[in-house]
Amino acid sequence: AALRCDRLLLGVNANRDVNPELARERESPSFNVETLVTVLDGSLEETHLRRSVGELLHVIRDPVFSRENVHFKTGQERYEGAIERSFHLRNIMTQKGWATEGPEMSYVYRALSGELAFNVHGVFLKSVMALGTDEQIAKWASLASNYNIIGTYAQTELGHGTYLRGLETTATFDIKTQEFVINTPQITATKWWPGDLGKSCTHAVVLAQLITKDKSHGMHPFIVQIRSMKDHSPLPGITVGDIGPKMSFEHIDNGFLMLRSVRIPKENMLSRYSEVLPDGAYVKRGSDKINYFTMIAVRVSMLGNEVLASLKKACTISVRYSAVRRQSELKPGDQEAKIIDYQTQQQKLFPLVATCYAIHFTVKYGFVWFSYASEICSNGVEVCRKACGGHGYSLFSGLPSLYTKVVAACTYEGENTVLHLQTARFLVKSFLLAQSGKALPASTTYLSSPVSNRCRANNQSDFLNPDVYVEAYQQRAYRLVASAANKMHGLVQSGSEQYLAWNNTSVELVKAHTHYMTVKIFADALQYVSSEPEIQTAIKRVCDLYALHGVFTNAGDFLQDGYLSGKQLDLATAAYLHLLPLIRKDAVLLVDAFDFADAELLSAIGSYDGNVYHNLLEYAPSGCACRPRLDALYVCPFI
Amino acid sequence: AALRCDRLLLGVNANRDVNPELARERESPSFNVETLVTVLDGSLEETHLRRSVGELLHVIRDPVFSRENVHFKTGQERYEGAIERSFHLRNIMTQKGWATEGPEMSYVYRALSGELAFNVHGVFLKSVMALGTDEQIAKWASLASNYNIIGTYAQTELGHGTYLRGLETTATFDIKTQEFVINTPQITATKWWPGDLGKSCTHAVVLAQLITKDKSHGMHPFIVQIRSMKDHSPLPGITVGDIGPKMSFEHIDNGFLMLRSVRIPKENMLSRYSEVLPDGAYVKRGSDKINYFTMIAVRVSMLGNEVLASLKKACTISVRYSAVRRQSELKPGDQEAKIIDYQTQQQKLFPLVATCYAIHFTVKYGFVWFSYASEICSNGVEVCRKACGGHGYSLFSGLPSLYTKVVAACTYEGENTVLHLQTARFLVKSFLLAQSGKALPASTTYLSSPVSNRCRANNQSDFLNPDVYVEAYQQRAYRLVASAANKMHGLVQSGSEQYLAWNNTSVELVKAHTHYMTVKIFADALQYVSSEPEIQTAIKRVCDLYALHGVFTNAGDFLQDGYLSGKQLDLATAAYLHLLPLIRKDAVLLVDAFDFADAELLSAIGSYDGNVYHNLLEYAPSGCACRPRLDALYVCPFI
Repeated sequence: AALRCDRLLLGVNANRDVNPELARERESPSFNVETLVTVLDGSLEETHLRRSVGELLHVIRDPVFSRENVHFKTGQERYEGAIERSFHLRNIMTQKGWATEGPEMSYVYRALSGELAFNVHGVFLKSVMALGTDEQIAKWASLASNYNIIGTYAQTELGHGTYLRGLETTATFDIKTQEFVINTPQITATKWWPGDLGKSCTHAVVLAQLITKDKSHGMHPFIVQIRSMKDHSPLPGITVGDIGPKMSFEHIDNGFLMLRSVRIPKENMLSRYSEVLPDGAYVKRGSDKINYFTMIAVRVSMLGNEVLASLKKACTISVRYSAVRRQSELKPGDQEAKIIDYQTQQQKLFPLVATCYAIHFTVKYGFVWFSYASEICSNGVEVCRKACGGHGYSLFSGLPSLYTKVVAACTYEGENTVLHLQTARFLVKSFLLAQSGKALPASTTYLSSPVSNRCRANNQSDFLNPDVYVEAYQQRAYRLVASAANKMHGLVQSGSEQYLAWNNTSVELVKAHTHYMTVKIFADALQYVSSEPEIQTAIKRVCDLYALHGVFTNAGDFLQDGYLSGKQLDLATAAYLHLLPLIRKDAVLLVDAFDFADAELLSAIGSYDGNVYHNLLEYAPSGCACRPRLDALYVCPFI
Repeated sequence: AALRCDRLLLGVNANRDVNPELARERESPSFNVETLVTVLDGSLEETHLRRSVGELLHVIRDPVFSRENVHFKTGQERYEGAIERSFHLRNIMTQKGWATEGPEMSYVYRALSGELAFNVHGVFLKSVMALGTDEQIAKWASLASNYNIIGTYAQTELGHGTYLRGLETTATFDIKTQEFVINTPQITATKWWPGDLGKSCTHAVVLAQLITKDKSHGMHPFIVQIRSMKDHSPLPGITVGDIGPKMSFEHIDNGFLMLRSVRIPKENMLSRYSEVLPDGAYVKRGSDKINYFTMIAVRVSMLGNEVLASLKKACTISVRYSAVRRQSELKPGDQEAKIIDYQTQQQKLFPLVATCYAIHFTVKYGFVWFSYASEICSNGVEVCRKACGGHGYSLFSGLPSLYTKVVAACTYEGENTVLHLQTARFLVKSFLLAQSGKALPASTTYLSSPVSNRCRANNQSDFLNPDVYVEAYQQRAYRLVASAANKMHGLVQSGSEQYLAWNNTSVELVKAHTHYMTVKIFADALQYVSSEPEIQTAIKRVCDLYALHGVFTNAGDFLQDGYLSGKQLDLATAAYLHLLPLIRKDAVLLVDAFDFADAELLSAIGSYDGNVYHNLLEYAPSGCACRPRLDALYVCPFI
């Protein structure tokens, strides 16, 4: 009862009872949900901290933070709302003494679902701190920290993505005036995408090819003032604006920037790692790769904060909805059945719930697999959405915007394939190192020798032994990496040049490697994740489901070399199907444990109280005059 | 040149030359694109008819039909635009003498990308025609045809979907007054989703449980007036409004409807198939199932018109963009490579181009597979979108709205799983009929006996023999249907009741059956689709790619029973990979042959002229004041 009350405090419908359809699902839990919440957070203290941040931001019902009616707002209103919210948050942080990099911040982001401004302003600040000299930091960092200037980070160009050497913007040193002259000499050189650029920023860190004494020295970062500090109008030579509407992120002013012989003083080149002397000589100190740091940092923090959270939210919404929604007879003459009782629905949703747990533990234990996880999570969110039928198509379900937002992670800072290819290269290289007896990094030690080439499972229950399925995944990853390495070797031998060979090797092996690591880390975590047997049992089932679902859906990989026989695959599939009704019993509890407040889910069909239809009717006409007075019309059993 | 000119006439950028990157792709075609266009249309006459409709609607540059700036419009503006466009179209149809069901109409729909109003008004009209008595037709059909009334068709309820018996709206006959009293007695009974209901309609065909003399007689259609003919205000007892924003279809006023003891005259029950006599007696004539007709009709016509067209458009956009976009070095020291030259990109896009052709021919030759095709096509559109990286995330690419719109087809009139389960039932039933020696419908004759249980291919080129891969698909479909039938039989024998067995059988077999039928029909079509050898060669390759890609991605199904050996799978995969560079050469031509005008694609990155970056810059700031004057800034090689 205390728990329910806590949750409802976070919700918007505190005065309504829980829909009996959903209450029944929580009546006789096979484990304590609060304990599982703590297990997921890592400790009771973290759970308290997270909830205290959430309560502070939601319970006070601060209208600035409210996302009610968000779907009726224009892009401009959402942009202005995000700015207002960001400054408001800053005040609260000051009051509460929360540091910018403090432990509260990821919970703030979670509570506000990221609808904030000045994210790339933060990247501007970090770039200055990382790439500037002490003098430059002294000058720019405090200006930016105090929002006296608004910065952005302008790297990507209209015609060029992650490939830094392809960028066309130039910064030519003029010895006479001791200035850099910045140009985007082609349409394709136009800076494109930076957030906070379209409308907000006054300054930008612009990545440009440094040219001095007619020689090019590659990409370097320059601070360029974009707009007047007096009236915010673009400075001479600068054309800047919003790139127009996107699939989501209506609140962000992603922008474009053209520079036509814009002159900046010499000291605006961020010079911690390289410098141009007054005579035009180029001096370098430190790594070439340093400039790439910012984007990597963005990706890693996003994985936990946003990508995984989106799938957790989508699972929460769709599982709760499926426990309320009824459709068709399952047994002739019965009431329409809950859709969660259909095996087809279970096969859609439960593997995704299991995926949330699997990624949660692998991220927590340090294995980061952004490029693959962003694809898994965004596809998963969309499966959840479709599994909610027509109501999942309504923006009020919360699911469409979860999808359109998270799917951007598949193309941030380079299309995912770029990252896949990089990882594939790393794996093949590791394999070849192992062949020549060299030591391997921890995540790839398994590449030094093959495991058994036949699975030893004889019956269905053998497939519930983590040793059995972990080995299967290990063997699959080993085989695919080895085969790619050999194939490449063959291509190179046959005269195909190596760069072509790289292009031709498949990226399937990255998936196999990541899948193996995830299953292994998840299975290892079972040992120490909780001392409570009920929790252990519940998580073990989730882990089994995750692993066996992967076998079932990638059957070809396990069958091709005869590691699994057709008969064994049948056993694994049977074991997987057998788990579904067990997970079914815990399903609502497993998503409750993700512990999202209603204000975080913002879903008419996924709220904690399960009053799906009532919520839809309440949301629907709030944009028009014809809002029905439900109470006058109906005596509803659960109003 | 004539062709290019024709196409550019349809486009928005008639004054610009084709980007040399794209021009090169069309320089030495391996077949005549115009011939392939005609093959796809079915005849030269159809091509002419289609183009004449398109030209009429686009070339006149009628501002009413223009979809420029659509992404900057509010929902209300798009709703009003769709209504204006519909009436304008009606005038043109009258002028030109085009009939409502005439051959021009599907091309009109294609040309205007469906941004029209009154679609469900058309369903209202069809319902009256199909379900009304001659008297009822005489009264209502002309009113509706002349738009004196606007109708809608209200079946789906907030808590109930395709399962008709679950609907809760009631129509109770009152003998005293000779009226029906219509009620939505629960929140869940609220009618929900009908297009044209939220704002436009005056009348509705409402599906309701008929109750007379305290006995329920199932669902029947009733004409209910919703709004006043004087001031359009809702009539007494009626609460009606818009259900709020959706993932797409901003121009459609999907609505909700609550009825509280709304009385309608007895003659408003559509009574062609059943009637209530003045004394309350219920008289039936004809089939029970008739009411379901409308939804089926909607689905079939959608498959060709919208679902497949969306994938064709997405392929057109992404293939053209991939032939312009450059990213990273493929060969060290070279210019950045076209992304279409990366095998990873080819593996994403070319199987989808092949899927367009496969579905095109199967639809054309009468095999309709809506439930599966809507999933394939919507997933495919999203793959195309992601393959365009960041620019695919911009609404200006045209890809996000293609996706958010076509994906609705997966949940129209019942979530796809419902249809999958129905087909699965049909297949298992057919198999069991065949076991007892009964004759089967043409599409399932193959279920009467198994084919060979080992594939006879010995080398890579064997897999380019359609007999080889058609047999493989046939064997897979047979095996999965047989195994499901046997599994079900086993479950029933073991005491599991039949309804549970149905729930537990997999829907994989539906996919296998549909896949087999598609490959078979496509392979058969190769015989007679064209007499020109160049066209034959091109289409044969596409068919081979489609079939082998399916083997490669569903390897487990072919390996599990040993029909393919691991070795054979390697050969099939090699044959598939070998096709990619051949398709690469024709890729732009294969999508050009879909023959979409720029005004139909409405894509900055997919227009015929390939001026991707220029278009993006032109589109971007048209919503704000800071539009750059490109000509003043740059001397662009292809402006």
